[in-house]
Amino acid sequence: MLSNEAKEAIKIAKSIKTQQSDKLTPDQVCFLRNDANQNNSVSIPDDIKMDEINENAKGEFYHLKNGIDRTVLLFIHGGAYMTGTVKSRRKLCFNLLRRLNCDGFSVDYRQWPEAKHPAAQEDVMAAYQYLAKRYKRVLVFGESAGATLALTLTLELKSESRKLPAKIAVFSPVITQINTMPSEFLMQERDPMLLGAGDPVPYFAEPYKNDPLISPIFGDFTDFPPLMINCGSEEVKYDDSKVLNYLCQKAGVDVTWTIWQDLFHVFVLFDMPETKQALNKIAEFLK
Amino acid sequence: MLSNEAKEAIKIAKSIKTQQSDKLTPDQVCFLRNDANQNNSVSIPDDIKMDEINENAKGEFYHLKNGIDRTVLLFIHGGAYMTGTVKSRRKLCFNLLRRLNCDGFSVDYRQWPEAKHPAAQEDVMAAYQYLAKRYKRVLVFGESAGATLALTLTLELKSESRKLPAKIAVFSPVITQINTMPSEFLMQERDPMLLGAGDPVPYFAEPYKNDPLISPIFGDFTDFPPLMINCGSEEVKYDDSKVLNYLCQKAGVDVTWTIWQDLFHVFVLFDMPETKQALNKIAEFLK
Repeated sequence: MLSNEAKEAIKIAKSIKTQQSDKLTPDQVCFLRNDANQNNSVSIPDDIKMDEINENAKGEFYHLKNGIDRTVLLFIHGGAYMTGTVKSRRKLCFNLLRRLNCDGFSVDYRQWPEAKHPAAQEDVMAAYQYLAKRYKRVLVFGESAGATLALTLTLELKSESRKLPAKIAVFSPVITQINTMPSEFLMQERDPMLLGAGDPVPYFAEPYKNDPLISPIFGDFTDFPPLMINCGSEEVKYDDSKVLNYLCQKAGVDVTWTIWQDLFHVFVLFDMPETKQALNKIAEFLK
Repeated sequence: MLSNEAKEAIKIAKSIKTQQSDKLTPDQVCFLRNDANQNNSVSIPDDIKMDEINENAKGEFYHLKNGIDRTVLLFIHGGAYMTGTVKSRRKLCFNLLRRLNCDGFSVDYRQWPEAKHPAAQEDVMAAYQYLAKRYKRVLVFGESAGATLALTLTLELKSESRKLPAKIAVFSPVITQINTMPSEFLMQERDPMLLGAGDPVPYFAEPYKNDPLISPIFGDFTDFPPLMINCGSEEVKYDDSKVLNYLCQKAGVDVTWTIWQDLFHVFVLFDMPETKQALNKIAEFLK
């Protein structure tokens, strides 16, 4: 049974969907980022100290008062490599950090139209290396395109035989830039948020390329760290989770796939009881 | 309940599967074509007169004694644009023609390694135009890659506003050259015939291109002729049928999707009661 808050969130998501179009102009992207920062941001609470990091690694570094010492969460926001912002994900990030009782770093990676692939991949890698030097355990959380980046980060680390994240949790992952999964078509009427089966995101110059750092569906998941996949049952991206779970099981990865019944793409961005349940489960897994 | 013949066919298919590899050499392709012609061909029976056509259109033209006059079946064999032959599909074609009681033309299109895309598309188009001049109604049947060609032929005719086939029946269609559908992964253990999730066929220089004449999943099916889709429930290509059915329904096409329970990719190539059932249904639709 969905909560009333979830039913309300589905209404809001549907209204966002009707405003969607396959192609955004740079001005529209700018507007959406500012809008998200103004309406979905929270200020820094008393139990958290924030440092803005603007070195090779860029992002907001959150230090928890009385948090555990040697563990950090790398938080990677989504937004189709376009419209997501660090500020608009603060609340979600804080809610996760409090459950984990550890520091966090929300990476501010370059997106379209300012940059193209592999800019985001490089920025996420720089943030990871920054944290890997300072902490014993690096956990990773990513949602939507941020989930893609969590996977491509780890595939790149693996291919270079570097130290991997301790555990990874992805929410509504996208594992291919080619939007032709059956769920992209069959869930169009049911997904309250995404149109489905659209053009690839403009961030990639070669979205159709067979390259695991563009579409991790082409990756080798052998020796991947423990992975938790979360998705809504009504997502046009549902099959991305289904195939990711398959690839990881076949590669012998410790993978846990949780399907949130009747819910939608990155519903954790909304305030509702189901978000609390999901964050509890994710924190339990990451600990 | 599968027939004993079907169970035996599954055993044979499994043994073929173990010999499969993602990459065939030109010599292996040549061997497989000769093998198919020697072991799966039949000679021309008394009720059929055969002309070998070697004009712009190439193929075997079958004239049925006492057949109806103004209808013809364009038959397009499969085989991954590599290993299929006209001769090895004679029996299937004759079984279909007798049920339809009409003439047929089995197109001998160019394949890899002799040729690359769009050679097959051009040859199928030439055969269609050859028949469209001579008959009032052109029906089309294609299996596997031949099903892809039946679809791409019609998409091309549609884009040029030319006369379309009267009806089309496809068997085990392939609608994308990018082998990343969930069924490509999830059916691997169940499909007795195909490995799944492999590299694209070598016939296409640009298999990943967003082009409806390469991958009809990118096509516009509005105003498509009545279409019958057949597939086995255990195919790695199952999702291709699922999405094709979706695309046609959404475009308002008169589409009929028949799933043959517990059966496999192009099982109509085997002698078994289920093949007779399927051919009866296909003929009933095409009539």
